[in-house]
Amino acid sequence: MPQSIASHPDRLLPAEPGTRSIARDLLARVQDLPIISPHGHVDAAVIEQNTPFPDPAALLVSPDHYVTRLIHASGVPLDRLRPSKTAEPDSRAVWREFCKAWPLFDGTASGYWLRTQFESVFGLQHEISAETAEATYDAISAKLQEPGFRPRELFKDFNIEVLATTDDPLDKLESHKAIAQDPSFHGRVLPTFRPDAYLNIAHPDWAGNVERLLAAAGDGGTGYGAYLAALESRRRYFIDHGAVSADHGVITPATLKLDQAEAARLFDRARSGEATPEDRDAFEAHMMYQMARMSVVDGLVMTIHPGSYRNHHQPTFEFFGADTGHDIPFGINYTQAIRPVLQDFGTAKDFHLVLFTLDETVFSRELAPLAGFYPSVYLGAPWWFLDAPDAMLRFRSAVTETAGFSRSSGFIDDTRAFCSIPARHDASRRIEASFLARLVAEHRITEDRAHELIVDIVDASPRRVFKL
Amino acid sequence: MPQSIASHPDRLLPAEPGTRSIARDLLARVQDLPIISPHGHVDAAVIEQNTPFPDPAALLVSPDHYVTRLIHASGVPLDRLRPSKTAEPDSRAVWREFCKAWPLFDGTASGYWLRTQFESVFGLQHEISAETAEATYDAISAKLQEPGFRPRELFKDFNIEVLATTDDPLDKLESHKAIAQDPSFHGRVLPTFRPDAYLNIAHPDWAGNVERLLAAAGDGGTGYGAYLAALESRRRYFIDHGAVSADHGVITPATLKLDQAEAARLFDRARSGEATPEDRDAFEAHMMYQMARMSVVDGLVMTIHPGSYRNHHQPTFEFFGADTGHDIPFGINYTQAIRPVLQDFGTAKDFHLVLFTLDETVFSRELAPLAGFYPSVYLGAPWWFLDAPDAMLRFRSAVTETAGFSRSSGFIDDTRAFCSIPARHDASRRIEASFLARLVAEHRITEDRAHELIVDIVDASPRRVFKL
Amino acid sequence: MPQSIASHPDRLLPAEPGTRSIARDLLARVQDLPIISPHGHVDAAVIEQNTPFPDPAALLVSPDHYVTRLIHASGVPLDRLRPSKTAEPDSRAVWREFCKAWPLFDGTASGYWLRTQFESVFGLQHEISAETAEATYDAISAKLQEPGFRPRELFKDFNIEVLATTDDPLDKLESHKAIAQDPSFHGRVLPTFRPDAYLNIAHPDWAGNVERLLAAAGDGGTGYGAYLAALESRRRYFIDHGAVSADHGVITPATLKLDQAEAARLFDRARSGEATPEDRDAFEAHMMYQMARMSVVDGLVMTIHPGSYRNHHQPTFEFFGADTGHDIPFGINYTQAIRPVLQDFGTAKDFHLVLFTLDETVFSRELAPLAGFYPSVYLGAPWWFLDAPDAMLRFRSAVTETAGFSRSSGFIDDTRAFCSIPARHDASRRIEASFLARLVAEHRITEDRAHELIVDIVDASPRRVFKL
Repeated sequence: MPQSIASHPDRLLPAEPGTRSIARDLLARVQDLPIISPHGHVDAAVIEQNTPFPDPAALLVSPDHYVTRLIHASGVPLDRLRPSKTAEPDSRAVWREFCKAWPLFDGTASGYWLRTQFESVFGLQHEISAETAEATYDAISAKLQEPGFRPRELFKDFNIEVLATTDDPLDKLESHKAIAQDPSFHGRVLPTFRPDAYLNIAHPDWAGNVERLLAAAGDGGTGYGAYLAALESRRRYFIDHGAVSADHGVITPATLKLDQAEAARLFDRARSGEATPEDRDAFEAHMMYQMARMSVVDGLVMTIHPGSYRNHHQPTFEFFGADTGHDIPFGINYTQAIRPVLQDFGTAKDFHLVLFTLDETVFSRELAPLAGFYPSVYLGAPWWFLDAPDAMLRFRSAVTETAGFSRSSGFIDDTRAFCSIPARHDASRRIEASFLARLVAEHRITEDRAHELIVDIVDASPRRVFKL
Repeated sequence: MPQSIASHPDRLLPAEPGTRSIARDLLARVQDLPIISPHGHVDAAVIEQNTPFPDPAALLVSPDHYVTRLIHASGVPLDRLRPSKTAEPDSRAVWREFCKAWPLFDGTASGYWLRTQFESVFGLQHEISAETAEATYDAISAKLQEPGFRPRELFKDFNIEVLATTDDPLDKLESHKAIAQDPSFHGRVLPTFRPDAYLNIAHPDWAGNVERLLAAAGDGGTGYGAYLAALESRRRYFIDHGAVSADHGVITPATLKLDQAEAARLFDRARSGEATPEDRDAFEAHMMYQMARMSVVDGLVMTIHPGSYRNHHQPTFEFFGADTGHDIPFGINYTQAIRPVLQDFGTAKDFHLVLFTLDETVFSRELAPLAGFYPSVYLGAPWWFLDAPDAMLRFRSAVTETAGFSRSSGFIDDTRAFCSIPARHDASRRIEASFLARLVAEHRITEDRAHELIVDIVDASPRRVFKL
Repeated sequence: MPQSIASHPDRLLPAEPGTRSIARDLLARVQDLPIISPHGHVDAAVIEQNTPFPDPAALLVSPDHYVTRLIHASGVPLDRLRPSKTAEPDSRAVWREFCKAWPLFDGTASGYWLRTQFESVFGLQHEISAETAEATYDAISAKLQEPGFRPRELFKDFNIEVLATTDDPLDKLESHKAIAQDPSFHGRVLPTFRPDAYLNIAHPDWAGNVERLLAAAGDGGTGYGAYLAALESRRRYFIDHGAVSADHGVITPATLKLDQAEAARLFDRARSGEATPEDRDAFEAHMMYQMARMSVVDGLVMTIHPGSYRNHHQPTFEFFGADTGHDIPFGINYTQAIRPVLQDFGTAKDFHLVLFTLDETVFSRELAPLAGFYPSVYLGAPWWFLDAPDAMLRFRSAVTETAGFSRSSGFIDDTRAFCSIPARHDASRRIEASFLARLVAEHRITEDRAHELIVDIVDASPRRVFKL
């Protein structure tokens, strides 16, 4: 067995011995705290039905666009890694590709999460490599058959207290209901209202979605008023089933207040297929304003995830679908874009608006100043390409001097990969400990306060920001 | 008394022992040098009249938008922290709010400045906390009554040599005059020419200001020529009263050269209330060109502070006025925007143009390359949200490899908070020592040169760049 | 002799002793590897003719815009540093200006390269200073007369294996031919196809260049088809003479696919002098698309260097020409701009597209995500203002967590300054060792892997990416 870094007690901690020692103590304070995961993409049915996980490739490789994208970049066609429209690759063959490609992941966030899972969750005795591909496939497969490896058992082992899913507004939330009513299961699995495909006219399913929305939750009308009422009704349904937040994956963070008549006119025009691109942009921006207004009324935390060019490579999208590794960030601004919402709701009682970004330039320039003034605004944790050790440290360095520690959302794992959840939260806790330890070592905060702060960051912040 | 970090001799210095030791020696070289403050917002009348400072809240909390903004973000309405149009909160109540909110400031620049003041200036024996609110209020109040706490005594205690204020072009500068003529006072208090409200047509007072300007300093004419002559005359007046610089708080750094006739046409149109938004932008950009031209002639250092969306929250602006914590930065570019000025004056003899930014992305991309070629261009020190330890280190890291150390302005405290001036300059000196110490430890500069450089940065640079 | 940092074995390595020790070992692995320089600006004739280098000023100061720009910024007119349209300064006088200005270079990348050359290449016994100007001029002059200081001898001493030049598409490549046919010379000197002035209609020589191109390499036609064929023919000529890449210095990275007829229409309009600015932009973007298409066919690696505002100071351009220190970067985006090329060629077999930037914001936001998905995309090494120690560390920190180490181009020295090549590669190797050492010290990669990775970064990456 080669030297293990996955289980090294000081992994991710700063090298300087004095700082490391402070970081160790800080980490010890939070290492056993339960996992709060207020935003992610696990399927609630997986928890409800507690069916065994599939084979190693189908669990750890094929569905994870973080993993397949880097192997794809190395020249392996995507159809050897994940199902396409026409075929599904053999699991062992996928695993072999992954094992061959494993050295590509050195230094990446995905590499850290995978390595930690292999050792801490699956107890692998071998390093991943082309040579050990069969052995590791078999070892993980065997583990996945064990009763202790069912989703509900892992949920408990992982010490997860709250896990939020992301759901279609018309989802009946049967799995969430069943889990909540099961007295034998003690975790909270909460739905999240995600209405993008009902708000964005440019979405290919928009017209059909609106039709279904009006049919399922409308008041009998077919116009803009009925549409708003139906959205309000579905939000209420989600709240009744435990939802604490509504999430918005938008192109840009533009928001816009339109008067009722103008909004209705755009809605009607879109329904008859006559909306111009300008109409679409205006309507989507206005619907962000409406979502904020509804959040003020019904209390759902509003989270915004903008700035990704979705499906950048059209041929891949056509053959493999969305979320297959070619969403590429671009530059955004929040200061002007979010102003219409903040004008009217920036100081509204109990309104929580969590702003995420893939463009680091807005951390110090816009997000920290906004969150450092508006009581409604919270800094979303580093997201997607940025939830990695160095990027998380850059985030803290960029925002803390303006906004302190109280304005952050707490860590968001944002993942579909259930078995990676502990590794992700572990990495985040190690980085928070590292950042605070540096401030202590530089006599910028006291060690006592750092101990309070790390508990607040890891535990109290997500509860407070997400109203848990 | 809990462990003190405010007086720790190594505060803000790097944790690595070898580097820290180098930094300590560098810091020792400059710790006793006088404070040069070539840009700030202290009121000259405070120094002239030498009246005692008001109570702790009115001195340290209510007027400081860095402080009130973060407390406001935590949910405290602004009318409990600062005067509004209709009411003024009780000082002790404000102080109690501040003390309760004090933990929010951990890790922030404001927290560092306040903590240092509490210990070094006010000699507080208690940590700030909700429990000690009355005691600390009383202790600071008592200090403020002492004769040694009058502004002129503190000016001397703080070892301030030069303090520049920021003034309206029509200000008679009576306080500056009185101070200069007082043989018993040895500091220099210099006015700064700040004509934004006379140049920017969109400013609500522009028309009235121009009227007053022409009446006070005009040549009898009412057109564009008279307007330029009046501005030149007032600049001359400022220079005669000790001014060394003219400061420009603009939305974007756009500059534009118009011919005389076109500029006159825009001016006339604006005076008759017919200017379009495009006219306004063009005229403001052209007036930046004119200010540069005048600086070339009269020698005033030109400083530009762009990129802040002023009064982002309209309801707060209406109730509390400007400078109340909701100016939010946005992305800017200098390369194209400043070119018209640099084309004509970039190599003009003795022209000094100091460029500031709230958008860190221009540090390495634009400012260092510009200042590393144009003799007129100097890098403004990290400003506003960026005059904090980590941000100042990012600045040095971003610009030094292209522009070296000779092209920076030296530290600018930019503050209204007189009692925070030593803490701010102290923080800056510690960070300069830390950055240089790292370069020494990495064998990138010699220790001897670092000792020369820190003196140059702290003392010679501001004198050279601001022609003091 | 004062304390030397140029020859300190630990220069540029991290200060923390444990990390430094790891970095030393990593550096030792690659310190003796040959230099691979796949992109630069040395003139092949210098190697072919093996003529002695000129005097110290003409070798090290006048032609190096990195050096003259910072001296110019300090107030020395450019005509005292480099030839203008009308005069040429005396070499000793230039050298004296440089020596006087030498302290300006502390902390800069250029300072590091120069200092290393002075000590390692020229064996100077004196520090550079105004006082030692004559002595250092004489010492370097004497060295330059030695037979061992001829270009070919230095080429060998420097352990250069491959050196790519940058060449006009109509260059006959006589020097490259002669070098390749000389059995006594063992290095590879490769041309690079750089067609900017043949693609960009706005270039002052475009019309004449196209004329010459059609005459020299055309098929007899004069239209767009003949133009494309001539470009293809010249690329083939370059390939036949050893070229492995085509380089593109564009304003923005915009790319655009036009249909044949529309492209031909724009071409004809430009030839008759009637192209609008929009036509020019569209045509240049389309020609980037065409260059990508040709690279897919003929295998030349495509490198893009965008985002510099060339000749920012018109008076300097008029008097001193291009490349005289006033090219200033500005903000760019790649995500939308490069999409047309990646749609069609992003997964094309053996297509290599190396993307460079002067705008650091695209490192984590766009380049790492693009290179982490598209097999064709490689991350260009930090370029121009960014090929400096701290900037190179920021690059690695920004891209590695998303893209790992396999997607980078390897170091590019991009220099005209032949004698600086070893210093530049040495700096890069030290920084790679420093970055990897930190990951090892933080238990993020194993030390064994770090040893493999540094060899891959320094040696295998440039060979692989540039098909050497």
